[in-house]
Amino acid sequence: MKILFAASLLLLALSHLSQVDASAYDKIVSHSRIRAKKQGINMCAIQEIIGTKKKYFSTCRNWYMGSICGKKALVLYECCPGYMQLEGMRGCPAAVPIDTIYGTLGVVKADITKQYVDMSKLTEQTQGAGSYTMFAPSDEAWEQLDATKRTELLNNENTLLYDALHCHMVSKRFLTKDLKNDMTLESMHSKLGLYINHYSNGIITVNCARIIHGNQVATNGVVHVIDRVIAPVKNTIRDVIGTNEELMTASNRAVKKESSLLGKLGQPGQYTLFAPTNKAFEKHKEGLKRILQDKTLVQAFLKYHLLSSVQCSEAILAGSRYETLEGSSIEIGCDGDSLTVNGIKMVLKKDIVTSNGVIHLIDQVLMPDSVKQVTELVGESQSTFGHQVTKLGLAAAMGPGAQYTLLAPLNTVFTDKVMSMDQHLLKIILKNHILKLKVTLSDLYNGQLLETLGGKFLRVFVYRTTVCIENACMVRGSKEGSNGALHLMKSLISTPSNSMYELLQKNGSFTVFLSLMEIAGLTELLKQEGAYTIFAPMDDAFDGVTEQDMKTLTSDINALRIILLYHFSNGIFISGGLEGSVTNLLETMQGSNLQMAKHKINHKINVNNIYAFQ
Amino acid sequence: MKILFAASLLLLALSHLSQVDASAYDKIVSHSRIRAKKQGINMCAIQEIIGTKKKYFSTCRNWYMGSICGKKALVLYECCPGYMQLEGMRGCPAAVPIDTIYGTLGVVKADITKQYVDMSKLTEQTQGAGSYTMFAPSDEAWEQLDATKRTELLNNENTLLYDALHCHMVSKRFLTKDLKNDMTLESMHSKLGLYINHYSNGIITVNCARIIHGNQVATNGVVHVIDRVIAPVKNTIRDVIGTNEELMTASNRAVKKESSLLGKLGQPGQYTLFAPTNKAFEKHKEGLKRILQDKTLVQAFLKYHLLSSVQCSEAILAGSRYETLEGSSIEIGCDGDSLTVNGIKMVLKKDIVTSNGVIHLIDQVLMPDSVKQVTELVGESQSTFGHQVTKLGLAAAMGPGAQYTLLAPLNTVFTDKVMSMDQHLLKIILKNHILKLKVTLSDLYNGQLLETLGGKFLRVFVYRTTVCIENACMVRGSKEGSNGALHLMKSLISTPSNSMYELLQKNGSFTVFLSLMEIAGLTELLKQEGAYTIFAPMDDAFDGVTEQDMKTLTSDINALRIILLYHFSNGIFISGGLEGSVTNLLETMQGSNLQMAKHKINHKINVNNIYAFQ
Repeated sequence: MKILFAASLLLLALSHLSQVDASAYDKIVSHSRIRAKKQGINMCAIQEIIGTKKKYFSTCRNWYMGSICGKKALVLYECCPGYMQLEGMRGCPAAVPIDTIYGTLGVVKADITKQYVDMSKLTEQTQGAGSYTMFAPSDEAWEQLDATKRTELLNNENTLLYDALHCHMVSKRFLTKDLKNDMTLESMHSKLGLYINHYSNGIITVNCARIIHGNQVATNGVVHVIDRVIAPVKNTIRDVIGTNEELMTASNRAVKKESSLLGKLGQPGQYTLFAPTNKAFEKHKEGLKRILQDKTLVQAFLKYHLLSSVQCSEAILAGSRYETLEGSSIEIGCDGDSLTVNGIKMVLKKDIVTSNGVIHLIDQVLMPDSVKQVTELVGESQSTFGHQVTKLGLAAAMGPGAQYTLLAPLNTVFTDKVMSMDQHLLKIILKNHILKLKVTLSDLYNGQLLETLGGKFLRVFVYRTTVCIENACMVRGSKEGSNGALHLMKSLISTPSNSMYELLQKNGSFTVFLSLMEIAGLTELLKQEGAYTIFAPMDDAFDGVTEQDMKTLTSDINALRIILLYHFSNGIFISGGLEGSVTNLLETMQGSNLQMAKHKINHKINVNNIYAFQ
Repeated sequence: MKILFAASLLLLALSHLSQVDASAYDKIVSHSRIRAKKQGINMCAIQEIIGTKKKYFSTCRNWYMGSICGKKALVLYECCPGYMQLEGMRGCPAAVPIDTIYGTLGVVKADITKQYVDMSKLTEQTQGAGSYTMFAPSDEAWEQLDATKRTELLNNENTLLYDALHCHMVSKRFLTKDLKNDMTLESMHSKLGLYINHYSNGIITVNCARIIHGNQVATNGVVHVIDRVIAPVKNTIRDVIGTNEELMTASNRAVKKESSLLGKLGQPGQYTLFAPTNKAFEKHKEGLKRILQDKTLVQAFLKYHLLSSVQCSEAILAGSRYETLEGSSIEIGCDGDSLTVNGIKMVLKKDIVTSNGVIHLIDQVLMPDSVKQVTELVGESQSTFGHQVTKLGLAAAMGPGAQYTLLAPLNTVFTDKVMSMDQHLLKIILKNHILKLKVTLSDLYNGQLLETLGGKFLRVFVYRTTVCIENACMVRGSKEGSNGALHLMKSLISTPSNSMYELLQKNGSFTVFLSLMEIAGLTELLKQEGAYTIFAPMDDAFDGVTEQDMKTLTSDINALRIILLYHFSNGIFISGGLEGSVTNLLETMQGSNLQMAKHKINHKINVNNIYAFQ
């Protein structure tokens, strides 16, 4: 409690801090300064991904994970931006002297940029009158630039190089706190747009280049060092997908033509497109053929590749879910340098920047559940069921145009005993795990009857925390496809073949109870259709009852009825539908409540403190 | 550090939790359950605003504030939704028995709704087959409903009341985790939209009615209790502002006609409009006349009243800033039951729900800085300057069509001494606080010369953390208006009338230094225009220097120059431009750096550990 209290106080303090409109970037810098407090004044804790030169201000999450993008990250202590060491003193006690933009390039060690400023005769401008923001590529950034491109720039220093550098400059001072998410700045090269993203994890990107050292204030502006050379952006997403060679084959174009989305992607906006390449489309030719026949499916398919926000690769430090335009979400994560989608490395080319968002090329198509055939919904945890359904010819029996629901038992259900069953019998059982209509989780209600391929009607039982179908209860993970739904079942569904009366009679241990029911005229209740739960006392339970007691009991039929009905509960209570650690109240037909509890560990059920056998 | 560590671990734990896609509502419920842990199982901490019946799950912030919307909030402990007490046992050990929607209305004490369900013959539907979500108004909600409206419903139980209840129902089960922000559900009344907002503070609204008890699972769906009766929504924001009587006068319409925004407000979207009433427009007739003449200003003015998100009043528990479509932000907060904008109670009517957002009627117009005349930018902390500028006729002198910048000293600057100054002299001084052009903070650069109304040229000095104009430095709070800008100055600006040489000579304590400068041939440096800082040694400083030393010093002119130039720094260093608690490095003309530090408390400056007199 003490810890919680302290934590809450800190949260409170942090939430107050955030009101002094500090930007996410500024907050991360403060945080990394707090982390390095013991190292001396103005020191910042930096995390560097091992084996790379990628450095990040330490965030709370990364600090404790000790890793970034799934790779181990070393903690380094450096001077916070704007401060420097002094000989013989701890920490970084000195503020870096202010200089012109030109001079500041030297201070932040953007030496190649400085040299290029000289070559392209921008020295005077960057030293002189005016107020500028310069996004200065680091030396590494220039070295990563395509060699041909770089040579071309250097061979045309007064034109191309001059323009390239002006493309990194804005004629106003913008500190990190002024760089808002989704902001567009006018660069000094033909006023072409610079697209700013300021993410909640503190990362700021400019045309997807990350600011790795921000806010170096100059006498005539400010310098932010970035990790990549920026190229001018003139096209929309629509322009790019219309001209990029990797996105040009017939099927790719066919899909594009189908969609009214294309118009949207030619308009201003903020999107991320995961664009499957030609090869990716080829791989899924068959599936796509089906999708292409249905406009709704094409729309859903395409929208699943689009986000309504700009996600540059450099902003992704860990997996997060993002809602797609289709409605369901995808997980974007990273694995070292690779961007991942739904946990899979599939990004061939990252960060194609456009005027209305960013494109990442992927070598797979993404399939939302909503375009999948019901059989395609089967996941790994239910793969045995999927295999059996195919093997026994049931998958083939599910014709197109009709709707189905799979009640897929988990793999653990298919024990050796089940698997060694007669194939014919197994087929009958599995047929009763396929419904002849589409029912989603939110459609299910208590008492509903669901017709199976096998012709049986299954009963639905809705509980507070789960839904059961006959004896089998669901676990999380229901899915909805184009022609059906899938639900995960904890056990095999077995359909009842006996009435309660038959069950109790067959068992042989309920003779006293049954005779009392007979006397009370309640036997019909046990034979008719209905949804009750009986807590039937076994013969042993009457051991303590004397003959005299029995006589009294049977003499007043009304009293007997009340007592017996107290053992009947409206609704069917399956052990799986009971919640652990709480008392489950069941209304009896007699009127008052029974208290049921499930033991946390052995799952035994006890009713009004008497153990029940299942 | 221990606290921080614990806090961070908790944050880490919380951030992990959030990955198990818990909704904001569900997280708040968990949090309030943790808060009530000591009270027994399944208890939740609830905060009730004193004097009202408004209850909220306790959030971290409200818990420590002890207040909600600025009003004291009592902490109550109640069973968490879905649980109940059992006689003789602590906490809420029992799960509430599951029942039909109809039965559940009784369980959650929505008795009036239950009664109306009976009256309108919906009993069978709410007890029978199907899967429904029912947003059930609490008894208080029905009592708050306009009496005439209620009577009308009750007199037409089979038509109006039936429709009204169907307007609260959806024919699918939606738990709170399924209710996503900005979702629209189809109600069972003519499929009219139900507009869901799920806020990050855990509040969920349906057509701006707040869910006060969520997730009461029923056998045939789920019941959420809401704090207000929902009305069917058919109109867009555009429809409402076109027909609402309080928004219909000439000036109001004139403004509306001007704007291409109106089209947008007729399209699907997610907006909040703070709509000034006719009376509000009347109050600002004069100012609006000016704005109406300029299309850009009209656009900015209108966009400042619009947010690109839906903010229902019930979701506001504390002040937060929201960016308007104009670009700058407004603070929406609350004061008890009242919604406030920028801290002012101005909302006459809350929560007019439309199909594309919500409208709140306000009795004032909101003026963004961007439409203000430069003189209108003067705020309270600079009001004395504002008054003086008006009193001395300077405000009137700032004609329309031209641009200005006010360098407004804070009120504290206008001491008795300043105020008792000759009016003519004061006017001259203040004229030098008004620039003949618009310069925003991000435009300023070191060495810039700014012409004042008084005809003087003021020099700009840019430092790492502040900008100074001559001797006076700025504090935060610069503003940008339609025809100019305003900056806040910590002191009066005084323009230099002497060269350094004149200053040093007049002072009389620098004879040795001046004679050495003469010998080194550097006197010109002290007379010419330029931007240097000199750390001039006073005569006393030479006390320890013997005549022999002096001879050596003057015998080698080059060595002497190097020593003297070590006292000159490029750029002008004003004490206000120095940062506290760090060493400020100044490059000297001789080449190496001087170390300056400002004392935290007495603000004395020390250079290479020698105190400097200012």
